[in-house]
Amino acid sequence: MDGAPRSGARRRLDALNALGARHADVWVASASAGGRAHLVPLSFGWTGELVILAVASDAVTARNISSAREARLAFGTSRDVVMVDAWLDDTVAIADAPGIAERYAAQADWDPREADGPYVFLLLRPHRIQVWREADEIAGRNVMRESEWLV
Amino acid sequence: MDGAPRSGARRRLDALNALGARHADVWVASASAGGRAHLVPLSFGWTGELVILAVASDAVTARNISSAREARLAFGTSRDVVMVDAWLDDTVAIADAPGIAERYAAQADWDPREADGPYVFLLLRPHRIQVWREADEIAGRNVMRESEWLV
Repeated sequence: MDGAPRSGARRRLDALNALGARHADVWVASASAGGRAHLVPLSFGWTGELVILAVASDAVTARNISSAREARLAFGTSRDVVMVDAWLDDTVAIADAPGIAERYAAQADWDPREADGPYVFLLLRPHRIQVWREADEIAGRNVMRESEWLV
Repeated sequence: MDGAPRSGARRRLDALNALGARHADVWVASASAGGRAHLVPLSFGWTGELVILAVASDAVTARNISSAREARLAFGTSRDVVMVDAWLDDTVAIADAPGIAERYAAQADWDPREADGPYVFLLLRPHRIQVWREADEIAGRNVMRESEWLV
């Protein structure tokens, strides 16, 4: 983690690599309508445009994101962060989205098609992405804002 | 991470070790009154009863937790999780809490007394603690509930 702060272009690349990482997890923060924060680590997939989460349809995360239509997602580690604010694009039942299911299973290390109980895919579209490691990278941490890549 | 699921006593010990870890970070999830989730990694201290966070007094995390009086805190990694739900016990200005400041600086890898701008300590009291690594540890993950140790 030594060295000069990364360029914007390098941070964008590192963000895309984090989104495409196989067998990784993302910290998913969501809030209830009443203003209670929830947080849980989940496996994920990435279509190139949308983050795919697979959650039990009655899970707190599913209820919160379905209601708020947004989530905040932290990829990487606390000292090598890719922070993504995303809008909910769509919610689909597992059985109704074979293409999404294939992409998810190719990247994540489990397959919700084999899970007990009803699962849904939450499809989340990033609108802000921030990338930083240590304090010297706080400046320039925005690589996407208002759904536009800045670098 | 191989082996049998840990005992409750072992998980309690691992939770206390995560809370006492030096130079570590915690993922802090908070929610605004309007139901927007926030998430950020922060350094922390642990008094043995209270998690100490140091935040700029105008930061989103400070505003959210001051309003909601609670936060959800993830220590460790996504596959070695110590998840803590905590109530806000107190908020104190850095200069008014020399004992807290000493404890924080002894554990964290920075010292908010040397920071620019007004910082506050948020003192958070755990009321639920869940400890798990993989799916085989979901059962038995609660080691504290309603502020009582279960193991």
